Amino acid sequence: MHNRRVILKSRPLGVAQAENFAIEVNAVPALAEGEILVRNEFLSVEPAMRGWIAATAGYATPVAVGAVMRSLAVGRVVESRHPLYAAGEALVGWFGWQDFAKVGPEAVVRRVTETDLPLSLALGVLGINGVTALLALERIGAPRAGETVLVSTAAGSVGSAVGQIAKILGCRTIGIAGGAEKKRACVEDYQYDFALDYRADDLDREIGRLCPEGVNVYFDNTAGEISDIAHKHLAIGARIVVCGTASIASWEDWPTGPRIERRLLVKRARMEGFIIFDHMDAYAGAVDRLANWVREGVLRYREDILEGIDACPDALAGLYRGENLGKRLIRL
Amino acid sequence: MHNRRVILKSRPLGVAQAENFAIEVNAVPALAEGEILVRNEFLSVEPAMRGWIAATAGYATPVAVGAVMRSLAVGRVVESRHPLYAAGEALVGWFGWQDFAKVGPEAVVRRVTETDLPLSLALGVLGINGVTALLALERIGAPRAGETVLVSTAAGSVGSAVGQIAKILGCRTIGIAGGAEKKRACVEDYQYDFALDYRADDLDREIGRLCPEGVNVYFDNTAGEISDIAHKHLAIGARIVVCGTASIASWEDWPTGPRIERRLLVKRARMEGFIIFDHMDAYAGAVDRLANWVREGVLRYREDILEGIDACPDALAGLYRGENLGKRLIRL
Repeated sequence: MHNRRVILKSRPLGVAQAENFAIEVNAVPALAEGEILVRNEFLSVEPAMRGWIAATAGYATPVAVGAVMRSLAVGRVVESRHPLYAAGEALVGWFGWQDFAKVGPEAVVRRVTETDLPLSLALGVLGINGVTALLALERIGAPRAGETVLVSTAAGSVGSAVGQIAKILGCRTIGIAGGAEKKRACVEDYQYDFALDYRADDLDREIGRLCPEGVNVYFDNTAGEISDIAHKHLAIGARIVVCGTASIASWEDWPTGPRIERRLLVKRARMEGFIIFDHMDAYAGAVDRLANWVREGVLRYREDILEGIDACPDALAGLYRGENLGKRLIRL
Repeated sequence: MHNRRVILKSRPLGVAQAENFAIEVNAVPALAEGEILVRNEFLSVEPAMRGWIAATAGYATPVAVGAVMRSLAVGRVVESRHPLYAAGEALVGWFGWQDFAKVGPEAVVRRVTETDLPLSLALGVLGINGVTALLALERIGAPRAGETVLVSTAAGSVGSAVGQIAKILGCRTIGIAGGAEKKRACVEDYQYDFALDYRADDLDREIGRLCPEGVNVYFDNTAGEISDIAHKHLAIGARIVVCGTASIASWEDWPTGPRIERRLLVKRARMEGFIIFDHMDAYAGAVDRLANWVREGVLRYREDILEGIDACPDALAGLYRGENLGKRLIRL
């Protein structure tokens, strides 16, 4: 048996491109006591990977040059030398961009218990995207029924879940996305009350028109100019969930923008960063709630599945080119 | 009896200067049923007055051109046609920059109960400055004993109280002030563990040296470049209290600065605006706690008292010139 592994070949400035990765083929290694061997079935492609690769200190230790690309994956145990795991079980974990992962139990995020649903969902709407949407919205956004929730990258894998969950919680939802197709997906697929295309619509005027009493929760996946406009429309006591900075190509040369202090002061607003890894205690419970909403048909999702490990090297760059509509995955 | 009143003569761009005000003399008006007449003894001069005068919408309705300048004041009732108030009582309220205020009960903030302490304190350490320091620090900063609290305009009337209260709550305190005299006051008068002079010290290097594990609470009275540096040193889970923007001369032409989103995201930090007028329910209780600390000698204050109503027109501009050391008041 051989193991194909996607290696970080060189550290990029900005978003990693295909040439920053290489595919190596090795023998599947033998297990030590306490380890398990997982055959990956789906690999995840996340916007956050940019930060995991960047040389500048983020919230995670950078992936080393020469190491397998860090990734969540879902797969099945093919061999176990750990008493808690048995061959055949489906697991989600930090298994990396490779066919086989030889790991200890610390790499396992959870067992897949929703066996009635497609396995791939464990990396999307039932994975860190969906769990991030739910926990960041509830814990930082704290939306109350009747409030207005504005979401950037509203058709993305986090944003689309945020909009639907806010709707389930009784909020009025407005999604911002790029392009007519994503704008349409916001309303038709993800049940947003209104959607705006930041490329075609006058965001300032439209947000003002749709939110005459201001935005109560701004769920921010982009930062940048879209957010600068959103910040002008905060309601008193608004909450801004800082979940991602997708519109900023690079923080190496730190970007500037309108100062936020007076917006927060005048509106007594709160702005807070959210990283899912601080909330792993609530992960399994969140997955259960999300899975029930999926079964009830009130939480919809889209997937963008690329075939085969050869698709990995360019998959992240493609995400930043905006070519996917739905959660990007690699099927092995 | 005559009433001298300081009128807003013209609306300034930026900070109001002496020429934006005029002093008028009128007869003291007769009371209607339900009103009281207060003889002001001390008038307050607040940095926030800039916002109360500005044409752009802030959190308060702008003072009208031709109206008496809005101000907190402390004085005694000289005549009452309201059953709850009696002649001779000391009150704090929205009595304006004038000798006599003819007002209804809605203008009264509270009765002065700490009659063992100087009346002027009701406008400073026992007024909105002290109450803001206490409630903003506790409600947004939420400091825990042993944490590091960094304060800008640390020798100012809010900042000096914040530092001492943080110390009372068991925190390690670092104050940032402008000039050697204020830096000295931070340590000697206000018990800061460390003080930095933003004009003379390398703030980035010194904050990094003093806070190797980061700043847990940044109490921000300045915004601007001082805050940009402070934001680089946040600890994971830090709280930024946005209480004032003293370093920004004007928001008419909105200033830019380094984007904050990634700082908040990477450190899972929270940034929130505080305006005392949202917390008036807790005002009297906060004054009681502050008064006890003053009596115990653990909460010190300084006053900068100007004499006579003729000092009013230039008093606010002088505050922004940085000429005061301590809470600025006008004694009538």
